[in-house]
Amino acid sequence: MVYARVQVGRRRFYALIEGDVVYPIIGTPFGRHCPTGQRFPLSEVRLLAPVSPRKILAAAVNYRSHLEQSRSLLGDAPARPELFLKPGSAVIGPDEPIVLPRDAGRVDYEGELVAIIGRKCRGVSPEEALSYVLGYTCGNDVSARAWQRNDLQWWRAKGADTFAPLGPWIVTYLQPSRPLLRTRLNGRVVQEASTAELIYDVAQLVSFASQVMTLEPGDAIYTGTPGTTGPLSPGDVVEVEIEGIGVLRNPVMAME
Amino acid sequence: MVYARVQVGRRRFYALIEGDVVYPIIGTPFGRHCPTGQRFPLSEVRLLAPVSPRKILAAAVNYRSHLEQSRSLLGDAPARPELFLKPGSAVIGPDEPIVLPRDAGRVDYEGELVAIIGRKCRGVSPEEALSYVLGYTCGNDVSARAWQRNDLQWWRAKGADTFAPLGPWIVTYLQPSRPLLRTRLNGRVVQEASTAELIYDVAQLVSFASQVMTLEPGDAIYTGTPGTTGPLSPGDVVEVEIEGIGVLRNPVMAME
Repeated sequence: MVYARVQVGRRRFYALIEGDVVYPIIGTPFGRHCPTGQRFPLSEVRLLAPVSPRKILAAAVNYRSHLEQSRSLLGDAPARPELFLKPGSAVIGPDEPIVLPRDAGRVDYEGELVAIIGRKCRGVSPEEALSYVLGYTCGNDVSARAWQRNDLQWWRAKGADTFAPLGPWIVTYLQPSRPLLRTRLNGRVVQEASTAELIYDVAQLVSFASQVMTLEPGDAIYTGTPGTTGPLSPGDVVEVEIEGIGVLRNPVMAME
Repeated sequence: MVYARVQVGRRRFYALIEGDVVYPIIGTPFGRHCPTGQRFPLSEVRLLAPVSPRKILAAAVNYRSHLEQSRSLLGDAPARPELFLKPGSAVIGPDEPIVLPRDAGRVDYEGELVAIIGRKCRGVSPEEALSYVLGYTCGNDVSARAWQRNDLQWWRAKGADTFAPLGPWIVTYLQPSRPLLRTRLNGRVVQEASTAELIYDVAQLVSFASQVMTLEPGDAIYTGTPGTTGPLSPGDVVEVEIEGIGVLRNPVMAME
């Protein structure tokens, strides 16, 4: 199933997407829900970020191909998942602009597979972890490199407003160990990897995080970025595409 | 005014506290609200954490008296507020136990003044920042030192379940630059400072954070801990008292 959060006129609601048709639901993907009986063409709705997470966890250095660029953080592949928090206030949806803060210097894209928690869990094993995942979406772990280097913690390097694009929707049937992830900057492919190359896969990340903190419906787990990242400039368009999910597209602008 | 979140039987609601009397309100302290007309003796209600924050920001190294213990983090007082994120899932209320994770090693108390955001704000000046603060409460920025030292980021060192005690209530009329903060471990005073000693005061912290991220009603800003912190053991009782607010008391237990 494909769950989206959409806006039609001033109304916002969850919906099921089948092909080019949007079926609004009563309720949310995280609990009981049923179709309202309405339908809209996909082209006539605005897609919003599919969740408004209370908690966002993200994995640092979780592809071997990203190790080279991360030498200053870690000498080698991490001995355990190295996670960090992003605030929910950083989330934007498809087509919303990534806004470059005035004094941040270089800000990079980081295309990522994102798992969305469906049910509350605590202390789950890797074997059972995926049963608590509702599905998957595309994410961009936007990162201000000077803040990341110079601040004690990454609260603003990874947490400024608009630094957590999510979308276009949540796909529940994805096999998370397979799909190809591609990031495009102004149409040119700048990152490409199979999510099979994740050092810690979704089940391991969810299990590890849940050993120390309760994961709740709507929480988002960014799984890490492959290869090399590069800077964003005003006027750019950045796209994160994952096979079997779709394309998360965001324009980039300077802060006014 | 003093706002609390309380439980009576199975019902949970916001209330105003005057002396020993609890006046339930309809609505929340963050919007329109009015008394229900009911009243309860304070001794007959259970106090809950006064907010369920979507975002928690906390200041590292924000008292000169804490610099000595933080030499490994920063050589000197920070050139700007050094903040980090704690997840909302870590919040517990008065009298709820701080649970020591099985494999965390040493876990310390950190008594702190906490500001609660009352109105949404972005890019506010220090001069106007306090008008967006609803009030103040006591907090304990519970910290697992080995995780803090060895992980890339502090997501679990500062973010494990029960690591963000908050309460007992929100006091709106406090002058945040004055009150005396005291942490007691099993009745013995282990931290004592005036919050006038904050390197960056509440107005500066709120203003600085709001330059990069939107602050929302209920968001909590832990302002940093003074002096030296020490380890918690199962069976301990830790209290954070702030003059003009009250006492946040939490027992400590080992994870089962």
